Amino acid sequence: MSTYGPQIEVAIARVRAEVADLHAELTRNGLVVWTGGNVSGRVPGADLFVIKPSGVDYADLAPENMILCDLDGAVIPGTPGSDRSPSSDTAAHAYVYRNMTEIGGVVHTHSTYATAWAARGEEIPCVITAMADEFGGPIPIGNFAIIGDDTIGRGIVEALTGHRSRAVLMQNHGPFTIGKDARDAVKAAVMVEDVARTVHIARQGGELIPIPQAAIDSLFNRYQNVYGQAPQGALK
Amino acid sequence: MSTYGPQIEVAIARVRAEVADLHAELTRNGLVVWTGGNVSGRVPGADLFVIKPSGVDYADLAPENMILCDLDGAVIPGTPGSDRSPSSDTAAHAYVYRNMTEIGGVVHTHSTYATAWAARGEEIPCVITAMADEFGGPIPIGNFAIIGDDTIGRGIVEALTGHRSRAVLMQNHGPFTIGKDARDAVKAAVMVEDVARTVHIARQGGELIPIPQAAIDSLFNRYQNVYGQAPQGALK
Amino acid sequence: MSTYGPQIEVAIARVRAEVADLHAELTRNGLVVWTGGNVSGRVPGADLFVIKPSGVDYADLAPENMILCDLDGAVIPGTPGSDRSPSSDTAAHAYVYRNMTEIGGVVHTHSTYATAWAARGEEIPCVITAMADEFGGPIPIGNFAIIGDDTIGRGIVEALTGHRSRAVLMQNHGPFTIGKDARDAVKAAVMVEDVARTVHIARQGGELIPIPQAAIDSLFNRYQNVYGQAPQGALK
Amino acid sequence: MSTYGPQIEVAIARVRAEVADLHAELTRNGLVVWTGGNVSGRVPGADLFVIKPSGVDYADLAPENMILCDLDGAVIPGTPGSDRSPSSDTAAHAYVYRNMTEIGGVVHTHSTYATAWAARGEEIPCVITAMADEFGGPIPIGNFAIIGDDTIGRGIVEALTGHRSRAVLMQNHGPFTIGKDARDAVKAAVMVEDVARTVHIARQGGELIPIPQAAIDSLFNRYQNVYGQAPQGALK
Repeated sequence: MSTYGPQIEVAIARVRAEVADLHAELTRNGLVVWTGGNVSGRVPGADLFVIKPSGVDYADLAPENMILCDLDGAVIPGTPGSDRSPSSDTAAHAYVYRNMTEIGGVVHTHSTYATAWAARGEEIPCVITAMADEFGGPIPIGNFAIIGDDTIGRGIVEALTGHRSRAVLMQNHGPFTIGKDARDAVKAAVMVEDVARTVHIARQGGELIPIPQAAIDSLFNRYQNVYGQAPQGALK
Repeated sequence: MSTYGPQIEVAIARVRAEVADLHAELTRNGLVVWTGGNVSGRVPGADLFVIKPSGVDYADLAPENMILCDLDGAVIPGTPGSDRSPSSDTAAHAYVYRNMTEIGGVVHTHSTYATAWAARGEEIPCVITAMADEFGGPIPIGNFAIIGDDTIGRGIVEALTGHRSRAVLMQNHGPFTIGKDARDAVKAAVMVEDVARTVHIARQGGELIPIPQAAIDSLFNRYQNVYGQAPQGALK
Repeated sequence: MSTYGPQIEVAIARVRAEVADLHAELTRNGLVVWTGGNVSGRVPGADLFVIKPSGVDYADLAPENMILCDLDGAVIPGTPGSDRSPSSDTAAHAYVYRNMTEIGGVVHTHSTYATAWAARGEEIPCVITAMADEFGGPIPIGNFAIIGDDTIGRGIVEALTGHRSRAVLMQNHGPFTIGKDARDAVKAAVMVEDVARTVHIARQGGELIPIPQAAIDSLFNRYQNVYGQAPQGALK
Repeated sequence: MSTYGPQIEVAIARVRAEVADLHAELTRNGLVVWTGGNVSGRVPGADLFVIKPSGVDYADLAPENMILCDLDGAVIPGTPGSDRSPSSDTAAHAYVYRNMTEIGGVVHTHSTYATAWAARGEEIPCVITAMADEFGGPIPIGNFAIIGDDTIGRGIVEALTGHRSRAVLMQNHGPFTIGKDARDAVKAAVMVEDVARTVHIARQGGELIPIPQAAIDSLFNRYQNVYGQAPQGALK
């Protein structure tokens, strides 16, 4: 058994439940097929995060099956789920948590329209107000990178550091999103597919009308500070 | 507690239930993601309307969470839900109720195909009979407007006053629809996405055949007067 | 109460239940939105058919709400549901039953892809084997016709008489399908949308490969005689 | 009753249940409409396989309705379900089991995007990493073949023998997939539609970026050996 003290153990239990539950949002929003996609959440107050096991059915994702890792992506032995392999994207998640300390959640999917932009290595232009609200500008592209070491994580961090967007389209691969917690990163995964689809379909029909930069700035600032019942959205 | 007299209180309760329930139609018809979209309904016989709270989960939309506002969009203090912020589009809804007195419901979504036409600032041509029935002609575009003051509301009213259509595509933003009550506005939101999708797909395949104006007029007039079990559809 | 004798009354009750149930297939297969679409079924052994009421929610379609009509499309007074108006497409259904005596079911929808071909007045070419199996060739276009008199019914009958296809795309309007019974016509409505979508998407990507006529004939004949557990499919 | 000895009878019962259950994945993933599509599974240790009956509703697919066949596709008399006709694609499944002895499952659908590529006779290029993972390169095309004899089975075997891909797009027809068992073949059917859709949409928007062959090789080898909780994926 792990022995992080009662406060951290409570936080681990909460993040396990949150991460397990949030996978249902990926299927409900049509972002994943079969066992694809993964959500992770940082444990506040500890150098730990919780992530989905590799290649397991969405119907089997209970809190006790989630896997606790340190910030190098190593499974913490003796904890629930530690007999299983974590998501094959664990190294990328760990890299983000090590290098973006304000980030509390990471999500990866192969959602259709976002991945289609990624296959062309083309950023999504900001032509709808919902995109200005949520991402504050275009969705950037991350370099092509092979899975398995730090190259994907590095690509994500390079693309998103200093960028308003919480989503990056890794070239030929698919979207990674970040957030202040796992739920915020899942919201970004839902929204990036929504804008990828809408802008794709809009452009099929002809010329898009750009939104002036001043209007994008105004929409982004307002949404980050006013929308909803409590501060949420992009990181502050 | 509000004290509008028993008849108005009954009407408020009915509109609260109706508005809360109708949000399920937005998700069921795939018009919204996450917490996006909003429905409002006027309280008959009072200068009041009921609207969704801002940024709240669709699963949490019970009648007592709906928010009662006056026609300037101010929350009525001491009423159920008044401790929350109303939809960030409340000013636009209020502007419509103040300026179009026959309107009983307003709906806003970012539904995919309607928003795609909006991103090009292109009205949807009337090339299918279902569109002639429901909207009596093309779906117009409203001027680009920044959220937060009266400019969106003014854009909606300018576009729809004297127009057969109950739907307007606000440029770079998305559809707003109106109706004789909240349900009628929701129907218009469902139908505008349906025709936006069908006409988009039709045009991808080649040249569209226009419908003669006389046939559009005949279809519209018939549908407004004959279809269904009781008069419904466009405003009379 | 109607008094058709016990055998016909049993047949009416069976067709009422069948027609009410089959509407669920329209929603389950994504062929209709709101109250759109309609299914009817002929009562075997009588000059009668059963059809959906006009503009009624899909959730309210119980057998006793279905409406019994004669072959001129007149509601039979005093029967269950006769206090309501029948589908606004009743005249078209009635025309088909009067003029195609072997037909036992008619379905109408505005399903997206089939309606998109209709908006261009373009028949769907037979380039996939599932289409050869089910329809034996291209899906034809019917002339533009205004709702409300016999012109739609005449257009359907003209297009489908002597044609292998059980589906016709009425120009600028949408698909009508026929079958040996209501279920067979619903199957045709599901399949025509499926092939309309697949062939649309196929053609977006480039040149289609035609299927030789001899292969189309062979596929159609085999499917009508061999597929399934008992003879079904096209009319014989 | 069949009398294969208790061990084989247990295996038959297990494969019956597995094949019946897996059909639900076809509908859940939107790969089939009406009664289309079929899954089969080889009975380990016997020259037998289990397949879906022809033209039967997806709601009626219980284990005892599945049909037991020998490797020539002949129904085994006296076994549960043997009073029904097996899938009209049974000859193709049988041909695969006879000629690819390491294969334990076969699936056929007319899923929309995969069939669209098939209607153009165009292989799907490998431009997304999920496709390199799962299929190790492009999805090949199989020759046009008429249903009913060995030509479809021969086309599948010719296209997939010595190929990394577990999916083939039979020209003008649709995808067939194979796997080490029925579940693995169903996974391939889900994934081939997913990549067919994503690559189609990607190419609509402009030029695709190829993935270098060395990266494809590396991704494929890693996924076959590392992903998931136990060895799965392509055949070894």
